[in-house]
Amino acid sequence: MKKHNFNAGPSILPREVIEDTAKAILDFNGSGLSLMEISHRAKDFQPVVDEAVALFKELLNIPEGYSVLFLGGGASLEFCMVPFNFLEKKAAYLNTGVWAKKAMKEAKAFGEVVEVASSAESTYTYIPKDYTVPADADYFHITTNNTIYGTELKEDLDVNVPMIADMSSDIFSRPIDVSKYICIYGGAQKNLAPSGVTFVIVKNDALGKVSRYIPTMLNYQTHIDSGSMFNTPPVVPIYAALQTLRWIKAQGGVKEMERRATEKADMLYAEIDRNKMFVGTAAQEDRSRMNICFVMAPEYKELEADFMKFATERGMVGIKGHRSVGGFRASCYNAMPKESVQALIDCMQEFEKLH
Amino acid sequence: MKKHNFNAGPSILPREVIEDTAKAILDFNGSGLSLMEISHRAKDFQPVVDEAVALFKELLNIPEGYSVLFLGGGASLEFCMVPFNFLEKKAAYLNTGVWAKKAMKEAKAFGEVVEVASSAESTYTYIPKDYTVPADADYFHITTNNTIYGTELKEDLDVNVPMIADMSSDIFSRPIDVSKYICIYGGAQKNLAPSGVTFVIVKNDALGKVSRYIPTMLNYQTHIDSGSMFNTPPVVPIYAALQTLRWIKAQGGVKEMERRATEKADMLYAEIDRNKMFVGTAAQEDRSRMNICFVMAPEYKELEADFMKFATERGMVGIKGHRSVGGFRASCYNAMPKESVQALIDCMQEFEKLH
Repeated sequence: MKKHNFNAGPSILPREVIEDTAKAILDFNGSGLSLMEISHRAKDFQPVVDEAVALFKELLNIPEGYSVLFLGGGASLEFCMVPFNFLEKKAAYLNTGVWAKKAMKEAKAFGEVVEVASSAESTYTYIPKDYTVPADADYFHITTNNTIYGTELKEDLDVNVPMIADMSSDIFSRPIDVSKYICIYGGAQKNLAPSGVTFVIVKNDALGKVSRYIPTMLNYQTHIDSGSMFNTPPVVPIYAALQTLRWIKAQGGVKEMERRATEKADMLYAEIDRNKMFVGTAAQEDRSRMNICFVMAPEYKELEADFMKFATERGMVGIKGHRSVGGFRASCYNAMPKESVQALIDCMQEFEKLH
Repeated sequence: MKKHNFNAGPSILPREVIEDTAKAILDFNGSGLSLMEISHRAKDFQPVVDEAVALFKELLNIPEGYSVLFLGGGASLEFCMVPFNFLEKKAAYLNTGVWAKKAMKEAKAFGEVVEVASSAESTYTYIPKDYTVPADADYFHITTNNTIYGTELKEDLDVNVPMIADMSSDIFSRPIDVSKYICIYGGAQKNLAPSGVTFVIVKNDALGKVSRYIPTMLNYQTHIDSGSMFNTPPVVPIYAALQTLRWIKAQGGVKEMERRATEKADMLYAEIDRNKMFVGTAAQEDRSRMNICFVMAPEYKELEADFMKFATERGMVGIKGHRSVGGFRASCYNAMPKESVQALIDCMQEFEKLH
């Protein structure tokens, strides 16, 4: 049976990327060696990193003066690397969910942290809009997509201080005005690669302004100076990331990714709004295109387990909502085909007919 | 032509591990999904982590009261995590090479660091033996194998304070008395897995004794409490690590790995000592079984490039010495077959006949 992979992360990757990576694991570039056993300093691997960096810059239209890094450790490690590198006195954070809160928590050990707004009181079902960012903040940190609650900042904000964004779950799903940010980071395991590599886009001249000692591995300058090769980088995930970047370019780039994301999300939200058995959980204007969250309507609440079983039997994978909010979550990252979204809609319609 | 992979890291892995990982990347456990796109919280992945932890404990005979962690970031990140977690006042380090020095450098930001001994004056060709470890040190840090210089501590030391060891390049190549250590860590990319995962063996009750704030991701307790699942772990490298651990067990465990390592190293060192064209660089008693370093004898110095070409044409890969020491380095990790070592010896003998 065909599986439709709605996993929230690690999550669906283009089939070409999967097949190409499996091939390289058996034999990398006709070298007679596996991708898993080549040196990261091998002549054949440097071009992989170089092309991945170049495609990052090209696809996201990154201006001069920025570096692109591929690091280990995950976005959670960035939660402390960001204040280590950028927080001298005061930082502002927008609290849009658990990940934003975790980022904020780490920053508190480094300086004054201002939570400019929060939607915690409504279990993060919306993105706060009316707030003031202190003009003397070193940066304003946002989480552009909130996987657990299905909310998304679908446009770059206009604020009076440089922004830092966790874009783990919506990178490459829309064009970004990178010049508004001094740092954009994310775990790769949603829209880019298998887990194990973190991308960081950093504005070079925003570094070097804090007075504290930064441990070598936590200092972005270390990794800029060595082209992400200060220590052994995660070779297999970086290779897979390159294949995904090539795929994005071949499909038409981030504008086409955005068109597809909007099309898929519109299809599924339309069904959620039409179908009497289901209710969307996020505020209409903040609905995420990446993670579409919904629950059973109150009068069908007791059928939640039934629908889960019904959908699973029809090949849907990973549609269980996060344990902290319940219900359902269909993650529709870049590699998710329209056909899989339609298959889920068909499930919802068939289930409605049965009841 | 058959390639003989003497890469220093990332490096040779058992062919079964490579093939099994490639297969899982196409279809994990018959799930219809790739290993690269399954959730780390999937029912099928937890047993991978659990079995890898259990095999670590079984193969290394790890006593009760220790945790085994799989983290991202690389051993270089451990260089600061170790003092973050264990250095309250004073730490002692044995300086046996670049990696030991890097570990020591990070510790200096956290407290007093005593370099008990160093072989820097001889480009680290031996392991210092006569030194005193301060009895009031929080720990004594060693690097058990020095990949660049080809020296190895082949037995656990007897010292009067708890030890911490970077075993990146010789883990699973001999039995260890884990009870002498409060922490053993290493990048996986030599004897265990592709790059992207770091193993940490940590004594639970040695934690919680420092008074500083430790960022969440840098706190070993975080990862113990969440079974290495605080954030998304590097799924593919962990899966490959499990396959290697199974392979080690099937071959006869670490005692058999040690027997093979000794056999391979004895073969190659015997040829280096016999062949008039080559000279070993490490002190006899400290010669590494993992990284066998040698140079051309002074009277054949100008033939270095010729031998490199000669060997490369015969399928030898990765035998160039580290750029900081020159010459040759044959890394013979667990997965290296005796046949490849013999192929290199054949090269050396043929080359000798030609000159």
